[in-house]
Amino acid sequence: MQVGLLGHGVVGSGVRRIIDDMNAKKNACLCIKRILVKDENEMVEDRMTRNIDDIILDQDIQLVVECMGGKEPAHTFVERALESGKHVVTSNKKMLASYGDELFELARKNGVKLLYEASVGGGIPWMAELRRIRRIDDIECFEGIFNGTTNYILSRMDAEGCEFDEMLVQAQSLGYAERDPSDDIDGYDVAYKTALSCLAAFDCYVDPQEIPVWGIRNITKKDMEYANEHGFSIKLLGKGEKKDGILQCSVMPCFVPRGGTFASVPLNYNAISSVSETLGKAVFTGQGAGSLPTAHAVVQDMLDIATGADIAEHSITACSVDESTEVTCYIRNCSIPVQYVSEKVDADTVITVPLSYAKLKELTDNTRGVMVIEVKK
Amino acid sequence: MQVGLLGHGVVGSGVRRIIDDMNAKKNACLCIKRILVKDENEMVEDRMTRNIDDIILDQDIQLVVECMGGKEPAHTFVERALESGKHVVTSNKKMLASYGDELFELARKNGVKLLYEASVGGGIPWMAELRRIRRIDDIECFEGIFNGTTNYILSRMDAEGCEFDEMLVQAQSLGYAERDPSDDIDGYDVAYKTALSCLAAFDCYVDPQEIPVWGIRNITKKDMEYANEHGFSIKLLGKGEKKDGILQCSVMPCFVPRGGTFASVPLNYNAISSVSETLGKAVFTGQGAGSLPTAHAVVQDMLDIATGADIAEHSITACSVDESTEVTCYIRNCSIPVQYVSEKVDADTVITVPLSYAKLKELTDNTRGVMVIEVKK
Repeated sequence: MQVGLLGHGVVGSGVRRIIDDMNAKKNACLCIKRILVKDENEMVEDRMTRNIDDIILDQDIQLVVECMGGKEPAHTFVERALESGKHVVTSNKKMLASYGDELFELARKNGVKLLYEASVGGGIPWMAELRRIRRIDDIECFEGIFNGTTNYILSRMDAEGCEFDEMLVQAQSLGYAERDPSDDIDGYDVAYKTALSCLAAFDCYVDPQEIPVWGIRNITKKDMEYANEHGFSIKLLGKGEKKDGILQCSVMPCFVPRGGTFASVPLNYNAISSVSETLGKAVFTGQGAGSLPTAHAVVQDMLDIATGADIAEHSITACSVDESTEVTCYIRNCSIPVQYVSEKVDADTVITVPLSYAKLKELTDNTRGVMVIEVKK
Repeated sequence: MQVGLLGHGVVGSGVRRIIDDMNAKKNACLCIKRILVKDENEMVEDRMTRNIDDIILDQDIQLVVECMGGKEPAHTFVERALESGKHVVTSNKKMLASYGDELFELARKNGVKLLYEASVGGGIPWMAELRRIRRIDDIECFEGIFNGTTNYILSRMDAEGCEFDEMLVQAQSLGYAERDPSDDIDGYDVAYKTALSCLAAFDCYVDPQEIPVWGIRNITKKDMEYANEHGFSIKLLGKGEKKDGILQCSVMPCFVPRGGTFASVPLNYNAISSVSETLGKAVFTGQGAGSLPTAHAVVQDMLDIATGADIAEHSITACSVDESTEVTCYIRNCSIPVQYVSEKVDADTVITVPLSYAKLKELTDNTRGVMVIEVKK
């Protein structure tokens, strides 16, 4: 199967390398015919082009692999590829979480596949495993560490007892965090991945902007110490659950018990768990990012398409997050308005109170001196 | 696809339940036509028979699912099924690890599949993930907690500071350990699973009796305390590695660092990790036993056969374990013959020495007061 590759950055170049290596070693069923690049100085081999039409209009190309990142022009190019009857594989969580409903409908109408393993959990075979489990079970719920940057910061804060700001600077200097780290540390990256996981687990399309999101910016050394004293660590978790037609999902820092599934997930790794009827709890851990692990996940999707793997089609419905859901929150050093809590909370007091998603969303992450963390039972 | 199910015990009855439920809910592609049972009093429905010929000679049955356990008659029945051109799915590690070379050759000759997901790691999709990773990468090595009974005993010894014998009795009273617990606690169960993992990871058939095996019978409260003081826990690990044509594999209790992959795997769970070139390290955790999780794994294999999943055929070669491999052993309170260690070791002295697999195999697990543990670098 001939492939058009969009983007030749961290992930795209990894995909090219893996596919070219497979072709060099054995009879591979995939071959990259054209590679779309952005700048003139990236045009280092004959396959490269700066014109998307060289891929969309090429009848030999049956599969388009999008590794450009960002919403546009990735979204338009994927749309055009699907409309031309080409299968699409994408690693672009932001684009797919934002336009998923429209793009999956387009794929269905044109009788082609749209796969997105690499967009969530990097090298972890999360989407493939959800598909596999769903051949037998309904998924009851999932939760996971979906972001390596925040896990790196929290793990080091936990191990070394330092403040958030110090660790952020260190993560930036090591290349684990971007110069503008907001997408990661404020939880938006995890919100995209949680939305895509709801799609794969429950056939629910949920707008990532509707998901209650709470980042890790306000977590201090003191909070981590408090967690430690009580046998917990703090991790940023994305969660989804569907019960009796009601969808609950959230992104928030959580107290996770030491010795449990998530407390010891190291540095920039990701770990995701699902619960389903007959399989029970299953946990998948691996590299959540990086050129080759993410490219590996892209190539797995490409192989599923090329070998005609039996991929069930599910009809997707738009869903809203149930805002009446209550979670138990840990609040300290509080400037939180009194209507949200039953008692007046002074500086340095720690309380746990039940708050609904709706109330949580009224508060902003910047409410001075407030941190909200779900307390897991 | 019509199925003949051999055995209706813990796993077999789970398989029947899942398949019957799938048929009740939707158009399933699998249907259980006959069920082989042992005793007259198990004959509770029309599909049941005590005559294997009712399954082997039935031309409509294309798939035989073996959940009987034990070497015979399971081995003979699987042989007959393969010879009659029927696909086979088995959950029987002992039988398959002992006759694997012959049975895979028989399957190849008759153009049928022989799958065995449930035989290793219960509900963990270990075999399917190895197949999937190997579409792209060679597997460099694997290691894992493959046995729930020993993990239960070691986890509780670690958490509660009690002695091995106490925990074994407790595990037996809870049904986690059998009345004759030798297969589990002396490591033979893990040896079968390690042998089958070598088959799936490296295409190496290794006789389980050739694998250096060291159980957990001699581990004391004092050993666990020593591990704890040095930042470790103790887990029974099965391992395999193939490098430059040399196969190393072993089953032995290991010091594993706290905060690492294995230290916090709870109670009767299993966890297995692989390392490969582009994916890097991947870890799979889940229920290692139990009726429904294990049956789930059996049904996944059945679905792969029924849907004609693209399962690569590998040619298997018989391999020997390299006995010159040295591991670092922790020895205390020692009655070990002096030729094995460079110094005389008194009671209560702790030393660590390098010993080869060959030397380890000369010692028996019952050498008084000795414990051998690989010290992980």
